[in-house]
Amino acid sequence: MDIKDELNRFISESSEQEKEVIQIFLNSLKAKRENTKLTHIASLLQLQTTVIDEKTLEMEMPNSPLLDNSIGIVHGGLTATLLDTALGTLASHVPGNKKGAVTVELKVDYLTPGIGKKFICRAAVIHNGRQLVRMEGKVRNEKENLIASATGTFFKLPE
Amino acid sequence: MDIKDELNRFISESSEQEKEVIQIFLNSLKAKRENTKLTHIASLLQLQTTVIDEKTLEMEMPNSPLLDNSIGIVHGGLTATLLDTALGTLASHVPGNKKGAVTVELKVDYLTPGIGKKFICRAAVIHNGRQLVRMEGKVRNEKENLIASATGTFFKLPE
Amino acid sequence: MDIKDELNRFISESSEQEKEVIQIFLNSLKAKRENTKLTHIASLLQLQTTVIDEKTLEMEMPNSPLLDNSIGIVHGGLTATLLDTALGTLASHVPGNKKGAVTVELKVDYLTPGIGKKFICRAAVIHNGRQLVRMEGKVRNEKENLIASATGTFFKLPE
Amino acid sequence: MDIKDELNRFISESSEQEKEVIQIFLNSLKAKRENTKLTHIASLLQLQTTVIDEKTLEMEMPNSPLLDNSIGIVHGGLTATLLDTALGTLASHVPGNKKGAVTVELKVDYLTPGIGKKFICRAAVIHNGRQLVRMEGKVRNEKENLIASATGTFFKLPE
Repeated sequence: MDIKDELNRFISESSEQEKEVIQIFLNSLKAKRENTKLTHIASLLQLQTTVIDEKTLEMEMPNSPLLDNSIGIVHGGLTATLLDTALGTLASHVPGNKKGAVTVELKVDYLTPGIGKKFICRAAVIHNGRQLVRMEGKVRNEKENLIASATGTFFKLPE
Repeated sequence: MDIKDELNRFISESSEQEKEVIQIFLNSLKAKRENTKLTHIASLLQLQTTVIDEKTLEMEMPNSPLLDNSIGIVHGGLTATLLDTALGTLASHVPGNKKGAVTVELKVDYLTPGIGKKFICRAAVIHNGRQLVRMEGKVRNEKENLIASATGTFFKLPE
Repeated sequence: MDIKDELNRFISESSEQEKEVIQIFLNSLKAKRENTKLTHIASLLQLQTTVIDEKTLEMEMPNSPLLDNSIGIVHGGLTATLLDTALGTLASHVPGNKKGAVTVELKVDYLTPGIGKKFICRAAVIHNGRQLVRMEGKVRNEKENLIASATGTFFKLPE
Repeated sequence: MDIKDELNRFISESSEQEKEVIQIFLNSLKAKRENTKLTHIASLLQLQTTVIDEKTLEMEMPNSPLLDNSIGIVHGGLTATLLDTALGTLASHVPGNKKGAVTVELKVDYLTPGIGKKFICRAAVIHNGRQLVRMEGKVRNEKENLIASATGTFFKLPE
């Protein structure tokens, strides 16, 4: 049985939540086909970036069944993925950084349960050193509840 | 156009890598339908757990295009997801813990680029306190290269 | 030879810097004799606390030869001591906390060399949970240069 | 009144614990006069180093009234000082490191109360990179009770 038949059969028996997830998968594939630089995970998590200024950036992640952990709140690993992506994106674009930056270390503090319609990460540069960029990030939901807080160190790739 | 038609049309125009990703999506949906306790993200990342003993657990994540970050190595957020899941799973099953545990904080050190065929996280209990479980984890690839190291604090849910 | 003779002989041969350090030692002993709750280390480091409000506190540490590490800047351990003391003092006095709090974990980011006439730590409560207090702190010198940044988790002692 | 008179008067009225602390102060001054490279804080804390091999080092800190925090256990800042000194000393001597290393970040997990006759920190190199050295450390007392665990990142000073 080829993948098309297999999928069609799966969809015929799908629950509403399964259809919702399939739609997210399909949208993520289309988004990635449009923009090959996008990563699969950023596409799946539907991350949307807003640059505030040279030292601040916001990244938004809408809630979806994909994000749930085993007790119905956002999986801590995906909160970490939002934070790493937001902090890393900003660290890769600090003034004087030509080649991007890689994560040296990331420390995430989980403060309140990750519930809400969407999760907004605000990333900020704390110190832009010669080789290291030091970052902070806060994740809030649409009601401004503080869900997680993080610090990260990024290493500038050599030119 | 309904989702079935939309998917069929997308598949007709798919590259080999897209087909590989669609197969991962489909497998993850099937695995989750079989085991409703499984989370979507654990299913997508194809995480496999091996309990070593009361204080040690291994969790394996095969490499796939889903894991890539923008420079072709494993996305740091997904390494963090593997670590949070492995450490949290073990912390939820320490002796005397009845109701599971939630992540208080997770600190990930990224040591070498995340490349390889699979990533194996070894989680260990450092201290099983009255309310907090303190954990450590190391992520290696199939060649035993140390890719990441982490510590985490988990809070036991009250009975 | 008793300690008095030993000290007198040492002082007779002291350099100016040694005399300065002896004066710090003597002042710290006197301060601790006056206030028995004071710890020796807080007395030696001449820590001075200013409560700003229920969620904010400042603690000041004047520079002195006692603080130097091997390359003439403040020893990172003493910056950590200032941070742990400031964050812990505030965490012990959050509303609803009757018995004080102990440090669960402290993460210090060293951003710029610790030079200056004094070091001011500003501590803030990020989240006051049922059992855990989550804190942040920044250390600046008298010129407002950001020297270190930290996060900490504290556990409320049971009543 | 000069410092000699002031000290003599203080000693005449000293309790046994004060005399013990004065003796520690005097010993630390003498040790530092003998070895000018020693820092005041390392001398006060009576830190003793044993090199195990190129990737492992032990540093010992005897307990004393100087170490007490406000509830009679070792001050968390001084446990951090022991860890920063041990990890930093080893990081400064890894193969290929010519000029020493400075602390980028230090994360300390406090596991059990710091009680005992002495505290032994075992430091280990986790990864010796081109510019960064990644370290781990554990602090135990003389009964092998695990008191604290830490990770640290150090930056190699350029030649």
